[in-house]
Amino acid sequence: FQSKLPDVGTTIFTIMSQLATDHKAINLGQGFPDFNPDTELLDLVSNAMHQGHNQYPPMAGVPALREAISGKVQALYGHHYDSNTEITVTSGATEGLMASILAFVRSGDEVVLIEPFYDSYIPAIHLAGGIPVPVPLQAPTAERPCYQIDWERIRGAINSKTRMLIINFPHNPTGINLRESDLDELERIVDETGILILSDEAYEHIVFDGHQHQSLARRPALAANAVVISSFGKTYSATGWKIGYCCAPVALSSEIRKVHQFVVFTVSSPMQVALATYMQNPAPYLGLSAFYQKKRDRLFEGLKNTRLVPMPSQGTFFLLADYSAVSDLPEAEFARWLTTEHGVGVIPVSAFYRNPHAAESNHGLARFCFAKRDETLDAAMERLAAV
Amino acid sequence: FQSKLPDVGTTIFTIMSQLATDHKAINLGQGFPDFNPDTELLDLVSNAMHQGHNQYPPMAGVPALREAISGKVQALYGHHYDSNTEITVTSGATEGLMASILAFVRSGDEVVLIEPFYDSYIPAIHLAGGIPVPVPLQAPTAERPCYQIDWERIRGAINSKTRMLIINFPHNPTGINLRESDLDELERIVDETGILILSDEAYEHIVFDGHQHQSLARRPALAANAVVISSFGKTYSATGWKIGYCCAPVALSSEIRKVHQFVVFTVSSPMQVALATYMQNPAPYLGLSAFYQKKRDRLFEGLKNTRLVPMPSQGTFFLLADYSAVSDLPEAEFARWLTTEHGVGVIPVSAFYRNPHAAESNHGLARFCFAKRDETLDAAMERLAAV
Ligand SMILES: CSCCC(=O)C(=O)O
Ligand SMILES: CSCCC(=O)C(=O)O
Repeated sequence: FQSKLPDVGTTIFTIMSQLATDHKAINLGQGFPDFNPDTELLDLVSNAMHQGHNQYPPMAGVPALREAISGKVQALYGHHYDSNTEITVTSGATEGLMASILAFVRSGDEVVLIEPFYDSYIPAIHLAGGIPVPVPLQAPTAERPCYQIDWERIRGAINSKTRMLIINFPHNPTGINLRESDLDELERIVDETGILILSDEAYEHIVFDGHQHQSLARRPALAANAVVISSFGKTYSATGWKIGYCCAPVALSSEIRKVHQFVVFTVSSPMQVALATYMQNPAPYLGLSAFYQKKRDRLFEGLKNTRLVPMPSQGTFFLLADYSAVSDLPEAEFARWLTTEHGVGVIPVSAFYRNPHAAESNHGLARFCFAKRDETLDAAMERLAAV
Repeated sequence: FQSKLPDVGTTIFTIMSQLATDHKAINLGQGFPDFNPDTELLDLVSNAMHQGHNQYPPMAGVPALREAISGKVQALYGHHYDSNTEITVTSGATEGLMASILAFVRSGDEVVLIEPFYDSYIPAIHLAGGIPVPVPLQAPTAERPCYQIDWERIRGAINSKTRMLIINFPHNPTGINLRESDLDELERIVDETGILILSDEAYEHIVFDGHQHQSLARRPALAANAVVISSFGKTYSATGWKIGYCCAPVALSSEIRKVHQFVVFTVSSPMQVALATYMQNPAPYLGLSAFYQKKRDRLFEGLKNTRLVPMPSQGTFFLLADYSAVSDLPEAEFARWLTTEHGVGVIPVSAFYRNPHAAESNHGLARFCFAKRDETLDAAMERLAAV
């Protein structure tokens, strides 16, 4: 038979983590912390299990958790999502993305997305029968050291067949954030086109240098046309628990739930019950930016002692580094080489492009994850200094 | 906008559980135990968390768990699935079903399924663009008190457009099992048509009266053309953990994984690590049939003291009862009435039919779940005696 996803292999994150394990490399590739979640949170899960929270929770999520999410979003971004009808707990941000795309994208619909992009978007669009329309970020220049959104090209890509625009800020892999002026642009686009926006805000709590996360939930006109997705795994250092959530107006949420209930039905009850209690204390998520900013700085400064050139990161727990002084290998080959020969696993940025092997997807960049203990970062930098 | 799933509401299980909660009814509707999993298993999860198993496990599942599954299937059914390439841990049987259907069913493909059927199959087929072709079970008669598979009609429904046959034994909601002669029929059909079989075996460990579960993994010719799906939630009384698995030959498993990795990416690491250890002792799953047979007998005998007439159940933790001596309401209305007026929540069997409101889907039957403490069953029967 013919595969429905002929171009899809195993995700780059799986491949590079496996390679790192096989070669005993320090894994700065796949985005996960190498430290444990707060012990208090683990104890809350144990308590929830022993108190009997082990059977199906409500399909849309444990009510107390949905209320906690609603309260947090209101406190941080000023928008009220009704916890009964507008918030759905999902099996990670990934399932929220898949359920939203399956719910809204029909055969032949176009979906505009910003390239480089997270690797699940395109296969999800394909499974829904849709047509991905990638629009590249503007590359950094000597005067402007960060990537930048090209609103002109995004506008140009939107037409009557466009069903959805997918955005992801703080941006994986480049680490750029939305600015207030970007929200203005988005508001104009929504106003003119009525387009639905899928906003992957998995890194909402990791924003550096005093900036604020520009959630779409800050603007009523955007919130009314958007699905806002986030991740507990990234926020609470528990990527293996696979819990996230979707916020959207009731008309959108009810369609997402129709799909969600048949994709996974519901999400781990003891983890949900524990998170509902844990969220009552905002300190852990409010403190996350400062925590990761120190790690970003450590890696950024350390890379200056190597022949890799780090690029600024404004958010997420990733930064890019330019390796062109070291090698002119294409990115995928460089990443393998660095992993196997120098014992530091990274992700080729080309994997976030539609055509990873094309010249225009290879800029001599590798993505480094700094969600690691300081010792891990230091050990990696020692190895990188020898490159 | 127009919904992609216009006929889909909230699942019947959610609705009836909510109604039972609202009316403080004893909930014998949605299929979940009202008792906790083994404390040993809970402690294994706590240990796994404290030992640091909280980040992304491998995409296809924790290797030790896949090995344990492989060993169990080989020991019970004689078929060897390679744990590296042929077993995928999923977010419950539900996600395994969705991933398999999305992986194999294309726009316009027909999918034959046996009616009554579990409620996720048809929406999953629709999301894949396929066309469901339900084939009814033969209803019980005076001489033959159980439902029976109508192989003639199944054969008649298969044509060149048929992509897949979905079966589910032990069968939810009727509680019938496959017999060896059914495996013979299936083998002939696969031999003649090469059709792919999706076998939902969520209740594989709950089979009564000394019968053996007839897994498709018992026959090499079937295993070579089948996806066999099971559920840890049903087996270990932890329906809220959302862990199950898919076994399939490598060519099929690799397509399922392509979808799985973008549907949820992976499944809860601490639960997987705990289950890998817990599975080393086969006693819990080998003892499950005897455990539930006592509960089946308790409910079956108790219902004889009511005006509801129980039907035989050979497997699952469900039995059907005929309420026609009590009421001639359609099933959905009877189920609501029993829940709100008599305080016992049940599921209308019509909800497992394509057209729940049609006369041919209403046989005056309600589904009772007996995965409940004896006190719960006794209290429910006391209420039912007054009906
Ligand atoms: C789901 S594995 C990928 C984790 C991640 O978000 C990343 O590394 O970009
Ligand atoms: C996923 S809720 C339904 C549980 C179940 O399998 C049933 O009640 O039939």
